[in-house]
Amino acid sequence: MRQAVAERWGVMEVALPGQSAGNPFTDHTVQGRFTGAREDVTVSGFYDGDGCYRVRFMPSYAGTYHYAVSASFSDTVQEGDFQVIEASPDNHGPVRVSGQYHFAYADGTPFYPLGTTCYVWTQQSDERIRQTLASVKKARFNKIRFCILPKHYDYNLGEPRTYPFEGTPMDSGVLTKENFWQYNGGAPGNRFDFTRLNPAHFQHIEKCILALQSIGVEADLIVMHPYDRWGFSCMDRAADDLYWRYVLARFSAYRNVWWSLANEYDLMKAKTEADWEHYADLIQENDPYRHLRSIHNCGPFYDHARPWITHCSIQRQDLYRTAENTNLWREQYQKPVVLDEIAYEGDIQHGWGNISGEEMLRRFWEGAVRGGYPGHGETYLNDREVLWWSHGGMLRGESWKRIGFLLDILRSVPGNGLRYIQPEWDSVCGVPEDEKIAEQTGYRLYYYSFMRPSFRVFHLDDTNVYHADVIDTWNMTVTDAGDHQGAFRVALPARPYMAVRIHKINGKNP
Amino acid sequence: MRQAVAERWGVMEVALPGQSAGNPFTDHTVQGRFTGAREDVTVSGFYDGDGCYRVRFMPSYAGTYHYAVSASFSDTVQEGDFQVIEASPDNHGPVRVSGQYHFAYADGTPFYPLGTTCYVWTQQSDERIRQTLASVKKARFNKIRFCILPKHYDYNLGEPRTYPFEGTPMDSGVLTKENFWQYNGGAPGNRFDFTRLNPAHFQHIEKCILALQSIGVEADLIVMHPYDRWGFSCMDRAADDLYWRYVLARFSAYRNVWWSLANEYDLMKAKTEADWEHYADLIQENDPYRHLRSIHNCGPFYDHARPWITHCSIQRQDLYRTAENTNLWREQYQKPVVLDEIAYEGDIQHGWGNISGEEMLRRFWEGAVRGGYPGHGETYLNDREVLWWSHGGMLRGESWKRIGFLLDILRSVPGNGLRYIQPEWDSVCGVPEDEKIAEQTGYRLYYYSFMRPSFRVFHLDDTNVYHADVIDTWNMTVTDAGDHQGAFRVALPARPYMAVRIHKINGKNP
Repeated sequence: MRQAVAERWGVMEVALPGQSAGNPFTDHTVQGRFTGAREDVTVSGFYDGDGCYRVRFMPSYAGTYHYAVSASFSDTVQEGDFQVIEASPDNHGPVRVSGQYHFAYADGTPFYPLGTTCYVWTQQSDERIRQTLASVKKARFNKIRFCILPKHYDYNLGEPRTYPFEGTPMDSGVLTKENFWQYNGGAPGNRFDFTRLNPAHFQHIEKCILALQSIGVEADLIVMHPYDRWGFSCMDRAADDLYWRYVLARFSAYRNVWWSLANEYDLMKAKTEADWEHYADLIQENDPYRHLRSIHNCGPFYDHARPWITHCSIQRQDLYRTAENTNLWREQYQKPVVLDEIAYEGDIQHGWGNISGEEMLRRFWEGAVRGGYPGHGETYLNDREVLWWSHGGMLRGESWKRIGFLLDILRSVPGNGLRYIQPEWDSVCGVPEDEKIAEQTGYRLYYYSFMRPSFRVFHLDDTNVYHADVIDTWNMTVTDAGDHQGAFRVALPARPYMAVRIHKINGKNP
Repeated sequence: MRQAVAERWGVMEVALPGQSAGNPFTDHTVQGRFTGAREDVTVSGFYDGDGCYRVRFMPSYAGTYHYAVSASFSDTVQEGDFQVIEASPDNHGPVRVSGQYHFAYADGTPFYPLGTTCYVWTQQSDERIRQTLASVKKARFNKIRFCILPKHYDYNLGEPRTYPFEGTPMDSGVLTKENFWQYNGGAPGNRFDFTRLNPAHFQHIEKCILALQSIGVEADLIVMHPYDRWGFSCMDRAADDLYWRYVLARFSAYRNVWWSLANEYDLMKAKTEADWEHYADLIQENDPYRHLRSIHNCGPFYDHARPWITHCSIQRQDLYRTAENTNLWREQYQKPVVLDEIAYEGDIQHGWGNISGEEMLRRFWEGAVRGGYPGHGETYLNDREVLWWSHGGMLRGESWKRIGFLLDILRSVPGNGLRYIQPEWDSVCGVPEDEKIAEQTGYRLYYYSFMRPSFRVFHLDDTNVYHADVIDTWNMTVTDAGDHQGAFRVALPARPYMAVRIHKINGKNP
């Protein structure tokens, strides 16, 4: 037992020595039961190498707990008590769906996911990993999507730090920009034992999850993905299960984990809908903390209405329109919408990876004002071909500098999150999700996108006094546009990317 | 008879004195029969005021013609012969649909409509009318949409030069920016006699049509529209018919006329589909030259599949996507697609009137590469509130300067017009409409829109040699990108609005 005291939503871990002979990943099981006044949770443990087995638990309440850990290789049950103290100030617990379309931490603090994607940042050098964490913090991203498994794709032809299974990979020296796509799935030359996991790989991912936790960032873990040359994308059911159960046993107790079943599930041709539903079952059986669950598309969406899916994780469907559909997808699936890929700011050859910073930020605001949560990504070419989208490192673009400003605006919305209304055919407008709060505050956030009005006329009612602010989303300024009653005109600078924020003035209401 | 010699696709006009007593617009009819070796055409004339009736005819062939004009007020038939000489070099005849999706003049010269909209430019001062004509010429627009009837709308509250009917209008002094929309259709105070047209109004429109003809510009005449305070949009069937027959009798003989039944037909709530079909019948009965016919929407499209519609005249359906749907609308209606309104470059308050020059040009290229014909418009606010969109005058924006460059690119496409193909999911590409020409020339025009690739890789086949050019659509440059065989890479400047043009090199083909 590493610690006798844990904090609420922290990790209580029980380590126990055990068998290392045979195959400890398949021959043995470990289970822990954690019992407090308000919960009684049984979880599976995992083999961490060097004859060490571990069981992890995240307590949801403060107070005295009892634990009892048993292993298939032993008749002894390891037992004891521990204290769970209140969470420290920066620990708000895991993120949950709040109401129907938004998010909040377990302690009730609203959470507005504005994240980024760096698929295999964990597989880079220590130096680049430090850079990535510093960049994420500087940009104020509060979620990051990344893969547990290594990635094989254009700009991703090198070897990862480690592999998730014991064995040796094919020789990556044969790969070129022209031929890489011919190597997919279990290409010749790979020798992996899909019955033996590599604890070092997962220990490292775990460190990265904790490093993110320490800077208040959610780890949106992509458990499976199609960009593979080692065979990890087309294992059989037994190997998949071994991998999934290991991931769930190791990572579930970290409060900042989200489960993304896959990046681009529909490109994993070896998997069927029955497979995805099976993985979903595994999560629900093995994650007692009910971390957020989603599945991300390349082409057609998975059916986000499935009850196990907590929120829509969406990649753009169209070169032109994506964030603009946020409100429609909310209506369709009746769930929060997270736009996990709306293209990448950058200049690579692919159409998904060469939009401008302005266009990226525009998509953020369109998505946010329509009551969803857009995600960032960057693919700028450079001499070393280190692209944020996969490798992390330094941010080079323009949009990331302006995401924190949007986050502040969202945090200042009364209640928890926005809902889209369309007061006129050419108005994109968010109001507080809660109708009562919307009515009481009169809060409205109009966004004009690439349009460039030199003024707009508002007429909400004849009785209330409204305060107006002009928001320049690109230059990150909020300019007082006065108090008004009846019909009023707000001057705008005839530039794109402007917003107008309006709310009733308290005390002046009739 | 004004002239004994006409040119092919010119106008032969026969004037005859007649009754001015009673109501010459409704009491009398005039008819002319024009007979040549290859055509025999009967048309109605019209009353032009001051006791003068006229009949106009556009001969479609050179040679000797005979005419015979009769009037209900006389027993005499005025007869004679006239010579039709070959068309002068700038006269290519009326524009027709060429093949299925494109246009050509009657003499076979391809025509690529890249037009603009100035709804009531004809109702401005002589000085502004001269400015408009000079601006259209400078921008190399080859089509202009405008109304026959005056317009009442925001920025359009003044009096027109003339009214189409005898009578007096309501006092426009009562109108303000706030109340104008309350005056619509036949507002109180108007006193028009819908049985008596005002020839001066039409004489002036006619002068404008001829002025356009003299600079090679097609007059896309909007016969009806909803923006009205005088009652012209909600006349009864008898008045509508009088107006339509008068318009058809006066203007049909001008080769550069196109018929647009309406601007935003769906906002004319007093009119039913039966009305529109009736007007279409009137055109077909009274325009023997089969000028192009279309009907333009605000919201839902009219059924462009109706046989009398020669081409789709389309207003954007969406704040974001319009030109991007060009190829879909071609497929749906199996007709040429003219994007007569894809929003306006400008800075007014309305969402349809404040896109940037860059966005306007982007929509032009998206529409053109997808095999359609986009239209321009401008709505920049200024001290005098003279907006190109309605008033014409001076162009103030940026997109107009770049339309002629696109026109030159289109003229250089082998064959007559482009057809959309999608070689990759992120390629927007036009090829020659004719499949044989497309195959022979290997011509491809790729357009990258707001995307900013720093290079693209092409691999069309292994045998042909292809020449590549990089086109900067905004800066209007064409840069030689060399000759290539097999797979090749074209460097691009990682800026938006770039295109790549590729074609086989003759003689090097196997």
